[in-house]
Amino acid sequence: MINPFDDTYFMKKALQEAEMAFEKGEIPVGAVIVIEDRIIARTHNLTELLNDVTAHAEMQAITSAANFLGGKYLNKCTLYVTLEPCQMCAGALYWSQISKIVFGASDTQRGFKTMGTTLHPKTEVVSGVLAEEASALMKRFFIEKRNLN
Amino acid sequence: MINPFDDTYFMKKALQEAEMAFEKGEIPVGAVIVIEDRIIARTHNLTELLNDVTAHAEMQAITSAANFLGGKYLNKCTLYVTLEPCQMCAGALYWSQISKIVFGASDTQRGFKTMGTTLHPKTEVVSGVLAEEASALMKRFFIEKRNLN
Repeated sequence: MINPFDDTYFMKKALQEAEMAFEKGEIPVGAVIVIEDRIIARTHNLTELLNDVTAHAEMQAITSAANFLGGKYLNKCTLYVTLEPCQMCAGALYWSQISKIVFGASDTQRGFKTMGTTLHPKTEVVSGVLAEEASALMKRFFIEKRNLN
Repeated sequence: MINPFDDTYFMKKALQEAEMAFEKGEIPVGAVIVIEDRIIARTHNLTELLNDVTAHAEMQAITSAANFLGGKYLNKCTLYVTLEPCQMCAGALYWSQISKIVFGASDTQRGFKTMGTTLHPKTEVVSGVLAEEASALMKRFFIEKRNLN
C-alpha cells in the first residue's frame, strides 16, 4: 500500500505556510516538523512582523516542536522547509540533532551548503522537493515588492 | 579622561549574567548588548529551563535588543558574550548586521571560528576579554555537574 504521507505531502503543508508569510508581506518561507507522520509544528517566517532576524520559519518550528515534545532534542523528527536553511537555522538544527531535513528550493547565496555550516552527523538531508513551487513563490514576492517601491 | 565604559566593564556585566545561568543549572554563558555605552539587553543561556536549543544567551540578546530598538538591525550595537558564539548565534549575528562582537573564552570545538561561520563584512570581532574568568566558570560548572551525576 502506498503511504500518502510522503515528502511531497508534508512539503505542501510547508508551502501553505510560506503562502501565509507571503500574505503578511514576509519573505515567503514556511516549515513544518513531523514525527511519525504527524505534524507537530507549523510556522512561517515572521522577521518583519516581529522585527527580529531570528524569527525564521525553521527557528520557530524548532522551538515549537520541542515545546510540544517536552524535550529539546528532535532526533526522531523531520523538518520540511520550502527554502534551504541559512547558517543560523542550520546551526540550530545541528543542536537539535534532528533526524532529517527536507528542503525545497536551494539558496545558492545564503544557504547552509554554500556557507559550509555543519549539521549533526546523524542528520539526513533531502533537497529539491517542490523546489519549483517554492522558488516561484519567492520570485513572485520579490517582483511584487519591487513594483510597490 | 579615561572612559570607564570599556570592553572589560561590559564583559563583567556579561559574566554576571553567566553566573545567573550557572545558579540555574544552565551552561554558564551570559551576554549583554550595548549601544552608545548603554546596556539594552542582558541575557543568559536558558536552553535547559526552556527545553529549547535556540535559547542561547546571544539569540535572546538579539531578540531583546531589536525589541528595545524597534528595528531588527543592530548595526550600531556591540554584543559582549562570555563564550565564543556557535554557528547558530554567529548566523543570527550575521543577519543582525551587528557592529561589533566581543567574546571572552574561545570555543575551539563548536565556536564559529572553528566552524567557519560567516559574519557580516562590517562586523568587528574582539576576543579574549576576561577569557580566564569565563573559562573558569565553565570549568567549575562541568566539574560540579560531573560530581552530581
